[in-house]
Amino acid sequence: MWIAELSRQTEVSVATIKYYLREGLLPAGEAVGATRARYDETHVRRLRLIRALVEAGGLSLARVRNVLAEVDEETREMHDVLGAAHGALIPTDLTATDQTRSRVDDLIAEEGWRVDSGSPDRMLLANALDALEKVGYHLDDDLLKTYAAAAARVANAEVASLPSDDRQRTVEATVVVTALGGPVLLALRRLAQQSASAQRYGKSPRLDCETAEARRT
Amino acid sequence: MWIAELSRQTEVSVATIKYYLREGLLPAGEAVGATRARYDETHVRRLRLIRALVEAGGLSLARVRNVLAEVDEETREMHDVLGAAHGALIPTDLTATDQTRSRVDDLIAEEGWRVDSGSPDRMLLANALDALEKVGYHLDDDLLKTYAAAAARVANAEVASLPSDDRQRTVEATVVVTALGGPVLLALRRLAQQSASAQRYGKSPRLDCETAEARRT
Repeated sequence: MWIAELSRQTEVSVATIKYYLREGLLPAGEAVGATRARYDETHVRRLRLIRALVEAGGLSLARVRNVLAEVDEETREMHDVLGAAHGALIPTDLTATDQTRSRVDDLIAEEGWRVDSGSPDRMLLANALDALEKVGYHLDDDLLKTYAAAAARVANAEVASLPSDDRQRTVEATVVVTALGGPVLLALRRLAQQSASAQRYGKSPRLDCETAEARRT
Repeated sequence: MWIAELSRQTEVSVATIKYYLREGLLPAGEAVGATRARYDETHVRRLRLIRALVEAGGLSLARVRNVLAEVDEETREMHDVLGAAHGALIPTDLTATDQTRSRVDDLIAEEGWRVDSGSPDRMLLANALDALEKVGYHLDDDLLKTYAAAAARVANAEVASLPSDDRQRTVEATVVVTALGGPVLLALRRLAQQSASAQRYGKSPRLDCETAEARRT
């Protein structure tokens, strides 16, 4: 297909596509003559991935470039793709106290999780726990273990759901699930929090009031 | 305490504290003479909350102002605090297809969750699901229900962990857990994903290799 068709199918403007081509985020099309090129389904998929990471994942283009570079490294073993995608998605300015880092290492050992000793995700967790400590909120061991059990359940289902037919598709799905599955889980958690709050504080949700009002009128 | 001591205890500069006072994010201290004021423990806690929301929660000051306004509304029932905090934390430019919005409503009904019919979190979830659809990744019902079960487990434990002694503390804990508990859950999910990936793709984590290498040398 020509660039106009690629633009139509992906709802990304021709100017933006050309920008991504110049920046090397999108591989060049097949040259036809001096100024035209043909694009195919791989370009459609790559463009959709870039837009999803930028718009839904909230990643900067620089961060997207890192993720794609990791994804496109064909010699990488499948297991390393996930770690590489994680590494590229992570902020680099993380800090955490030694005490919290030890707590994270202990938790991973207790859960029996197989996680690289050098994984930046260890620091990411320690950083998130320290942010709570700084406001005087200590997440106790019971609650932390509940989080860990829920996280394991989700992660096992996510990794089991990855396709296994085609390497490129598997790699893309890994990036998509990692970057865009998080917002789904967080939104569900907020809905479930509202429900738990309604139960604890005994307030009927507005839904019931509206229904009752509708009956009265 | 004077402003210098408040600054020392919270590690927030005097200039920033004065800015927050001018902007109404931090309540005024008790005036002592024309130019000095005394601050107390409530100011320490409020400053820590603001810094946590900005630095760890990634909220803009405008968003923080909305959250604090909701939190400080004393007439609000406890259940409404959570919904109000959610509303203030949420982006306002969400869109989703009618089909996905129905899917969300159906899921909430099936799970038996008590969620306001007008809660913006419904749209937040629909938006997150649509972001996956746009890259051609359909989150199937089994995986969605696994997410929902994990989210419910976490949310129930979170709401149960909120203190019940003092209204202001409960409200602050609600905001902190909502805004800063998410990053903890996501970091744990990433660690668990790595472990699941190591199991599925049969790669030993680097930890084992290093230990083996250490034994050899």
